[in-house]
Amino acid sequence: MEHARPLPSYLVQRFHGWKATAYTENQAWYRRLATDGQHPRAMIISCCDSRVHVTSIFGADQGEFFIHRNIANLVPAYCPDGAQHGTSAAVEYAVMALKVAHVIVLGHSNCGGVQGCLDMCSGHAPDLEAESSFVGRWMDILRPGYERVREIKDEAEQRRALEKESVVVSLENLMTFPFVAEAVKDGSLTIHGLWHEIGSGDLEQFSAAQKEFIPL
Amino acid sequence: MEHARPLPSYLVQRFHGWKATAYTENQAWYRRLATDGQHPRAMIISCCDSRVHVTSIFGADQGEFFIHRNIANLVPAYCPDGAQHGTSAAVEYAVMALKVAHVIVLGHSNCGGVQGCLDMCSGHAPDLEAESSFVGRWMDILRPGYERVREIKDEAEQRRALEKESVVVSLENLMTFPFVAEAVKDGSLTIHGLWHEIGSGDLEQFSAAQKEFIPL
Amino acid sequence: MEHARPLPSYLVQRFHGWKATAYTENQAWYRRLATDGQHPRAMIISCCDSRVHVTSIFGADQGEFFIHRNIANLVPAYCPDGAQHGTSAAVEYAVMALKVAHVIVLGHSNCGGVQGCLDMCSGHAPDLEAESSFVGRWMDILRPGYERVREIKDEAEQRRALEKESVVVSLENLMTFPFVAEAVKDGSLTIHGLWHEIGSGDLEQFSAAQKEFIPL
Amino acid sequence: MEHARPLPSYLVQRFHGWKATAYTENQAWYRRLATDGQHPRAMIISCCDSRVHVTSIFGADQGEFFIHRNIANLVPAYCPDGAQHGTSAAVEYAVMALKVAHVIVLGHSNCGGVQGCLDMCSGHAPDLEAESSFVGRWMDILRPGYERVREIKDEAEQRRALEKESVVVSLENLMTFPFVAEAVKDGSLTIHGLWHEIGSGDLEQFSAAQKEFIPL
Repeated sequence: MEHARPLPSYLVQRFHGWKATAYTENQAWYRRLATDGQHPRAMIISCCDSRVHVTSIFGADQGEFFIHRNIANLVPAYCPDGAQHGTSAAVEYAVMALKVAHVIVLGHSNCGGVQGCLDMCSGHAPDLEAESSFVGRWMDILRPGYERVREIKDEAEQRRALEKESVVVSLENLMTFPFVAEAVKDGSLTIHGLWHEIGSGDLEQFSAAQKEFIPL
Repeated sequence: MEHARPLPSYLVQRFHGWKATAYTENQAWYRRLATDGQHPRAMIISCCDSRVHVTSIFGADQGEFFIHRNIANLVPAYCPDGAQHGTSAAVEYAVMALKVAHVIVLGHSNCGGVQGCLDMCSGHAPDLEAESSFVGRWMDILRPGYERVREIKDEAEQRRALEKESVVVSLENLMTFPFVAEAVKDGSLTIHGLWHEIGSGDLEQFSAAQKEFIPL
Repeated sequence: MEHARPLPSYLVQRFHGWKATAYTENQAWYRRLATDGQHPRAMIISCCDSRVHVTSIFGADQGEFFIHRNIANLVPAYCPDGAQHGTSAAVEYAVMALKVAHVIVLGHSNCGGVQGCLDMCSGHAPDLEAESSFVGRWMDILRPGYERVREIKDEAEQRRALEKESVVVSLENLMTFPFVAEAVKDGSLTIHGLWHEIGSGDLEQFSAAQKEFIPL
Repeated sequence: MEHARPLPSYLVQRFHGWKATAYTENQAWYRRLATDGQHPRAMIISCCDSRVHVTSIFGADQGEFFIHRNIANLVPAYCPDGAQHGTSAAVEYAVMALKVAHVIVLGHSNCGGVQGCLDMCSGHAPDLEAESSFVGRWMDILRPGYERVREIKDEAEQRRALEKESVVVSLENLMTFPFVAEAVKDGSLTIHGLWHEIGSGDLEQFSAAQKEFIPL
């Protein structure tokens, strides 16, 4: 790999700072995590967005959360066709191997992926419709959600509704995985939908009873 | 979505704690991030593993790093076939839309995904070879790396070598994306490979000159 | 400009070293910073003192902090009289044009400017009282702080108290700028006061609740 | 100061990292700097811009450089009128009290302050002409430089020329300070002009012989 370059020095410096403080203080715990393996209680599926780090919001310690992050926190529908499905692999590993008790899908405001989906579905982003557009094809997962918000006139309201649909669609698709549905049925797994507003810091959760997102 | 359940109360409590402290202290910055959008300087591709949170290791603030996490920090080879490639979508978005300056692949010790790959490739995990195994098919990405370590006799040494291969293979595959290769060539993007040992806290980086991982 | 002289060769040498290493490693990021402009999250106002470089203490990368440095980290009161106010210009640019989320005032121990103020206010430095003394007139900004510490008998204690007053007076004066007060009020800006002890490396922050500096 | 807020936690974390590494390694030197006072060999006048940290470029150690940073690295002309001149105070302190051997003015590419001056002088920024504009009044210092570049037609070339003028004007104004002129005359002080290009990392210095900036 002749293209690999040295790490920027400010990151080297920060790493040494972490090593000398947080790591050293928790050394015994890190060592035990290395020998005993991980036993996370929850899987969290959230967006790659640099503004939303669930480890901060939930004060996560090492070992607590198995975290998958992709564009727009999407889970595709179950499709065991032998192709490389990274998200499905993460879900399978979390539920079958790690036996997490919770799967939490965390959406957020100002999501670039969701905005792209909106532009594409409303015909304003032809480049995203190309077969070669990875972002476009990935956002196809959210098309059923778009159908449910297409009549909303106000743009900001529509985008926010679609951001929340990215959570609902993912929860729906999660349930198409036989091992997820079974674990939910037998009570060994619960699933949860959250939506986070970056600017206000608020967190809303999807309520099955009220069929909408309710502030925590 | 009638299966969604309320968030466990310990997480609700932690969220309220975060909101009252870290969020409040950084309120102005969160608001600006919401209105101005993200300008991350780097994309980090790391594992879902609950013991490795790059945000801690690099003291990341909100807005700094665009983070994709999947099983074993793998990047598949470029394949614009119209299928849903979550990792490729994340890379495309980071490089093309966000124009990050760095892509950093972070592997780690004690990786369950890499162990699964080793078991599968050495014939000890027939279930992972099934077409329906998402984890197995995902770990196929690492098979070229396995070929390079298959002669190593010592088991622990071999696993560690394969963990490092998960980084090298991902860097190699990254370079198969035309837009990555081009950005690397014109100097607007650099790529970096790291491997982290959970128990000791150490970090090693891949050196193109020495063709191996060197402790930082 | 016939008086300009060539740069001392040790600095030329260091520059070439930096160019070949740190610059080259971060080349992609520097280029992006050049084309995209700066988006710093914070303004830091600190002293010119050669022993206090906030970029080290906070492991700053290029692009993170907009830094103004003057004698004794002072901010004068708002005074839009058409004269050349360098500090006020820096504050205006940071808050109005760059829309930073934080303004951090960083004072420090062993401050020569503060010592000069103490000497002047206690009648031991007549030359600093001359109209033509730029240092004396600049340190006039800190006179309200001197009034609050003048009764302290112990010299070392008094100097330290005045160093901390240089931070408090600056925070007070910052709030006299209408655009600062407004941004603080609407939550888009927060202000912070720090004092650093050079010898021990300690950092204390001003607590609004406790009305004093508390070690971090 | 009831408006002061706690420092964002990522900065607290970075500070602790610095304390445990860089500070601890250099503890003896920091202590000596605290007891013996500073003896910097040079004063550097550079811009507040978050992308230009001279401490990186010159690999500065604690104690080496007395650094004043303001918008566009400007020095006003000598004017002992009893008003608060922060930059003049810094120059006076460096030359008279610290007796630095060099004063280095460092300009840079992509300077927002210089761009503002250009807009203002060419009649495209009426708000900067208001008496109440601190940035506008501060940039008045550069007006003599604008006169020398006003005939340049190409916009990028003109801006670059004005960035370099910000260095030349500052050197000229420095020489209007009697104590600077005297120290330069008696050989105890030399002055230097530099211009740094952010994107390419290049550094040019003003040559008195060639009357232009020459790459190092």
